[in-house]
Amino acid sequence: MRFDVLTLFPEVIDAYTNISIMKRAKESDIISINSVNPRDYTLDKHKKVDDTPYGGGAGMVLMPQPYVDAYNAVSKLENSITVMLSPQGEPLNESLVLQLAKYDQIIMLCGHYEGFDERIRDIIKPKEISLGDFVLTGGELPALCVIDAVSRKLDGTLGKIESAQDDSFSNGLLEYPHYTKPRDFRGYKVPEVLLNGNHKDINEFRYNEQLNRTKLKRPDLYEKYINKKD
Amino acid sequence: MRFDVLTLFPEVIDAYTNISIMKRAKESDIISINSVNPRDYTLDKHKKVDDTPYGGGAGMVLMPQPYVDAYNAVSKLENSITVMLSPQGEPLNESLVLQLAKYDQIIMLCGHYEGFDERIRDIIKPKEISLGDFVLTGGELPALCVIDAVSRKLDGTLGKIESAQDDSFSNGLLEYPHYTKPRDFRGYKVPEVLLNGNHKDINEFRYNEQLNRTKLKRPDLYEKYINKKD
Repeated sequence: MRFDVLTLFPEVIDAYTNISIMKRAKESDIISINSVNPRDYTLDKHKKVDDTPYGGGAGMVLMPQPYVDAYNAVSKLENSITVMLSPQGEPLNESLVLQLAKYDQIIMLCGHYEGFDERIRDIIKPKEISLGDFVLTGGELPALCVIDAVSRKLDGTLGKIESAQDDSFSNGLLEYPHYTKPRDFRGYKVPEVLLNGNHKDINEFRYNEQLNRTKLKRPDLYEKYINKKD
Repeated sequence: MRFDVLTLFPEVIDAYTNISIMKRAKESDIISINSVNPRDYTLDKHKKVDDTPYGGGAGMVLMPQPYVDAYNAVSKLENSITVMLSPQGEPLNESLVLQLAKYDQIIMLCGHYEGFDERIRDIIKPKEISLGDFVLTGGELPALCVIDAVSRKLDGTLGKIESAQDDSFSNGLLEYPHYTKPRDFRGYKVPEVLLNGNHKDINEFRYNEQLNRTKLKRPDLYEKYINKKD
């Protein structure tokens, strides 16, 4: 999977993708990440990428020329999708992550400051994706969430020591509780059932915990799960 | 506002908070960010912070000792809240962001790998916050989203050239479209109404655009807005 990220702050993209599982996925050639800075494409003599809004109002608006030209300069694979990170988009969730993981290339446009000149949308026609109903200074964090969540779905990203199988939402329920050493931490003990080696009991305990905490914390998911099951 | 972030990857927190508006908010003492690495608190002689799960299964689980001791070492202000970033939490949205902005200190626990030993939750009793129904490798990106979104609400973070007033959701609707120079970009023109200087017309145009795109892209928000208005 190739990620091309149009951003004024490529150092943010690099910092996150140079650690942990992202780093390993890059080194194994499962993913590659190419940051493109629209500032390198501006034709403005002062290297400007934003200007004041027509019609007045606070904030600086990202100019169409640097973004459209930077976008055009990205080489596109056949099976490619272009995404704009924006609070107006479709909320990111597991099913959207799985859809995105089917592409060979995801090109992402990260806004900053007040937002994009509307003509960037009109010309590039990206799919808009949102992290939720809140506002961030830029699209870099949402873009990194897409990179992280999608990379986890690609063969080989997660090694033997990790697993996406037991993650929250993978079977429509929240995760069961995890316990590791020590057995007794300052009086807080690991549940007995996890120590007795009876896998039927362990599976039953974990499944019931999944049901209980989903019912308690996310009644919406619980309802969906129960109705699907019947 | 003081943010204390418990993370195995403090460099990720630093990279994002050393740019743009976050950097300026730090320099103006509106926010301060203190990363704490639980690895510095482990009593394990090999500096381990995770181990295999009791009861079997893939993935590594974060051990209680390094996290609880790192948490205890953070000096707490009176008006403080502790947050765990987790897919099981309450979804982050504008109203939660505004609630969080009222505290003087937000302490955040970032998981990684398979997740926290459940006793970390039992002992610290954090408020759990989620970015949405998808799974990330760690809590660092959600923590940065909280820092960014909350900082924008604090007096002085956004200067005269920025504004949170016109952001999406600030009046319950999505943002209106923005336009900046040039007036004509390769045949794509700025709407005439924004150029004629009539503020009544401009406000009407923008409000109608807000209504139209919210109705189209987010019928749930539109319904809520219309019902509230009546």
